[in-house]
Amino acid sequence: MLGGRIPWGVREEAVLIGVYDSGYGGLSVLRHLLAAFPDRDFLYLGDSGRAPYGGRDVHTLLDFGEQAVERLFEEGCRLVIVACNTMSCVALRHLQRHYCPPEGDRRVLGVTIPAAEAAVAHSAGHIGVLATRRTIASGTYPTEIRKLAPGHRVTSAAAPLLASIVEEGWEDTDVAREAVRRYLAPLAGIDTLVLGCTHYPFLEDAFRAALPTHVHVLDPAPHVALRLATWMERHPGFVEPGSGRLRVLCTGDPDAFVAHGTRFLGRPLPPVETIAEVGGRLAPREGHVEPRGQVVRPKRDRADGGTAG
Amino acid sequence: MLGGRIPWGVREEAVLIGVYDSGYGGLSVLRHLLAAFPDRDFLYLGDSGRAPYGGRDVHTLLDFGEQAVERLFEEGCRLVIVACNTMSCVALRHLQRHYCPPEGDRRVLGVTIPAAEAAVAHSAGHIGVLATRRTIASGTYPTEIRKLAPGHRVTSAAAPLLASIVEEGWEDTDVAREAVRRYLAPLAGIDTLVLGCTHYPFLEDAFRAALPTHVHVLDPAPHVALRLATWMERHPGFVEPGSGRLRVLCTGDPDAFVAHGTRFLGRPLPPVETIAEVGGRLAPREGHVEPRGQVVRPKRDRADGGTAG
Repeated sequence: MLGGRIPWGVREEAVLIGVYDSGYGGLSVLRHLLAAFPDRDFLYLGDSGRAPYGGRDVHTLLDFGEQAVERLFEEGCRLVIVACNTMSCVALRHLQRHYCPPEGDRRVLGVTIPAAEAAVAHSAGHIGVLATRRTIASGTYPTEIRKLAPGHRVTSAAAPLLASIVEEGWEDTDVAREAVRRYLAPLAGIDTLVLGCTHYPFLEDAFRAALPTHVHVLDPAPHVALRLATWMERHPGFVEPGSGRLRVLCTGDPDAFVAHGTRFLGRPLPPVETIAEVGGRLAPREGHVEPRGQVVRPKRDRADGGTAG
Repeated sequence: MLGGRIPWGVREEAVLIGVYDSGYGGLSVLRHLLAAFPDRDFLYLGDSGRAPYGGRDVHTLLDFGEQAVERLFEEGCRLVIVACNTMSCVALRHLQRHYCPPEGDRRVLGVTIPAAEAAVAHSAGHIGVLATRRTIASGTYPTEIRKLAPGHRVTSAAAPLLASIVEEGWEDTDVAREAVRRYLAPLAGIDTLVLGCTHYPFLEDAFRAALPTHVHVLDPAPHVALRLATWMERHPGFVEPGSGRLRVLCTGDPDAFVAHGTRFLGRPLPPVETIAEVGGRLAPREGHVEPRGQVVRPKRDRADGGTAG
């Protein structure tokens, strides 16, 4: 471990915390992290240009996860919170194995375990999970809940439209209320509902209206922040505070990101920096303006992989 | 033009027609093509693993379009119909320039011009267009309509939820009816509505219920088939019939593709073959089963572009 890497615990500079999500939704997690850690520096990466993740196949998700985590580490993060449930359920272990050897000074943490712990703490025995198709297909929520409470029943359902309804700003419409009612139908009898996607807390009113009053509607975001606080107590190498700075990167249209993001973050965003996939990596793409009409570009040499942006 | 390529008009073998869409939706176009050309051979490529295209940025769309067209040409197609409105509006000219030199024997055709022609033929002067965000942002529909009818008014609006509602199978629900009502609000006064996405014909009942009875609801698909028939009259090198065979490729979950696709095609699909992006190309991926739970894969050499599937 020679060659420039500073050993555990003797690092003095502020620890930049990366927060990674498929798009805007993770800003609802960042909001709780900012409240819990006001003196820390955060770098948010929203892959809005390739969102939603919920219908993607597993290997595409692993690719996207690798690219995002590599970008955040290159920007100076040593700790990355994967706020996206889909990515956390499918790719967290992969990202941890490849980027976080035990002897290293980098960590990647997810949201599924804090959510499962909070669900078990609230539930009398029957937990419901609504999430994206890929999150549900992964089976990761039932797996984690049963590790903690083997006798608990878990009923889950994919709700692929809900994130899009929130992205449209339609959370307070009959479209949202009727969609929520339909998606909750197979979850009859639950006592706790896990909102298994960062967009769903915006539909909390619709969930409460559609569920019996005794059902607890669980937004994992504050539990993610709480769990991070206890994690830091056990990991002193990551506690060095910063100065409360926030940078935001996105892969899609930065104007749309600011417009949507303010609602999710609950406060104005800083200027959003644009990144894009170039040769299998997420690289800066400043000053980019999406062209209109038919777009013709030079033919590229596909030997480099061809998906340059 | 020596070296193995058979010159124009003397080709004897059947012309395989490729039909390319972001996912299932283009099967509603293929349905009309099969009816109009029962003795032709078709190869459908649905990029369902990377759908929807409507929110993608332009360069990602050009990448996807190149990959799909290259795959279809490699499979033996000489004619490709880009059924996807988003791809047709943004990338058609790029694909034509790069793959279809005038002296060559390959052609790529889109759906926007047949749709614009049909709209102008039906309209008394005010055309509405509903489509994906990217289709609307491209401005291609207003551009094409104004070339044909400079005095016509065009009012367009993005309707990003509608394709997802159809993919969910919710076209006959209050979710669909309320979403359609909301998206039509800015289109007051139109006399013709272009359904500018291959999913929207499934919402025709909801559109008719929400619009005054005199408004013509235009599904471009039959006009695409009609336009292809007249195009073939002018291009005798493409008329050699086949034996009515149909092959289907998709990039996503083949079971989901069959389940959804039957509804769009209006008849059972043949066995669906799986392809995936490997090193910037769409390559066969037979026997693939999506893994459950956390997925860890070997770290790859990213020099090849890194987005292999």
